[in-house]
Amino acid sequence: MGRLLGPLATLREELRRLPGVGSKTALRLAYHIVDMPTEQVRSLAAALVAAKEQIRYCRRCFDLTDGDICPLCANPGRESSCLCVVEQPQDVAAMERSKGYNGLYHVLHGSLSPLDGVGPDKLRIKELLLRLQTEQIDEVIIATNSDVEGEATAAYLASLLKPLGLKVSRIAHGLPVGGDLEYADEVTLAKALENRREM
Amino acid sequence: MGRLLGPLATLREELRRLPGVGSKTALRLAYHIVDMPTEQVRSLAAALVAAKEQIRYCRRCFDLTDGDICPLCANPGRESSCLCVVEQPQDVAAMERSKGYNGLYHVLHGSLSPLDGVGPDKLRIKELLLRLQTEQIDEVIIATNSDVEGEATAAYLASLLKPLGLKVSRIAHGLPVGGDLEYADEVTLAKALENRREM
Repeated sequence: MGRLLGPLATLREELRRLPGVGSKTALRLAYHIVDMPTEQVRSLAAALVAAKEQIRYCRRCFDLTDGDICPLCANPGRESSCLCVVEQPQDVAAMERSKGYNGLYHVLHGSLSPLDGVGPDKLRIKELLLRLQTEQIDEVIIATNSDVEGEATAAYLASLLKPLGLKVSRIAHGLPVGGDLEYADEVTLAKALENRREM
Repeated sequence: MGRLLGPLATLREELRRLPGVGSKTALRLAYHIVDMPTEQVRSLAAALVAAKEQIRYCRRCFDLTDGDICPLCANPGRESSCLCVVEQPQDVAAMERSKGYNGLYHVLHGSLSPLDGVGPDKLRIKELLLRLQTEQIDEVIIATNSDVEGEATAAYLASLLKPLGLKVSRIAHGLPVGGDLEYADEVTLAKALENRREM
């Protein structure tokens, strides 16, 4: 075709909103979608709307849920005195996959980034402080990412939470398990040295 | 969350059908979609269904169209005696962008690939032969890709079309314009030498 057909151009523009999808990828996807069986396209469209409509934030920890309270908060087998603070729902999923944690979570939905206009009021920090007042919590583990924004968020949270008399900890940074010393970046290696433990 | 929520898992499976989207990318997209404004998700879903429902193949050249006949076939300003045979609708778009061609097209919708079970009957070759009988065509330019399947398709088409007394040509292969000799692959360089022209 000479000029891009209307519906194809619209679809390309809509697909470009997705992360990591530029103009060319969007067009490639659009062509593929036109070639897909109608039934598959319909069920993809339905899945998009269903996910958006059925999934909301847990009223307590702000993780994703399709109910009112997420399955983790509703689980009486979890240790309710320990709270792990993460940036995103994906981080909860990653922590759960590690099977190393049996407490509850609190999802901030971002990290402090003044340059992008993300201050403490844009994160679920108010809600975290409220939980600390109403729930019986002894320890808060800060598991934000180890980039600049994550570290700043961790430092900010620590400064807020320590005066409350809570045990506040930060997840460890060091060499990834199975990682080669030779290929570790300098910052990770420096952190691993700094955080060394007696054997 | 512990296990992936139902609507999120469904969306991930649906997104995985798209080309170049694996399990991890699909999940990343799904999380992003849950975070998008509802209105945007709805219009993406609507654009998917609209593109699939409104776009069909041109009855004459099998390029994409939202009508019965595509804009190129319907354009009386195009030279109707020349036919350019390409593999995909995307190739028509690429040819049109080059502004180097003013004839009509014929889209095969694939290339011969016996290992994948794609024989001549799976391509729009019957329809091409029918066009050659009913339309006044003098030259057929074969512009399939220059990979193994595209070359095999070109050779097969040439063997079918030449006996009909048509002028059959193949687009040239050589160094890309602006390309460095130093970085050209061997096969392209060999082709460029073989197809050299007197100056």
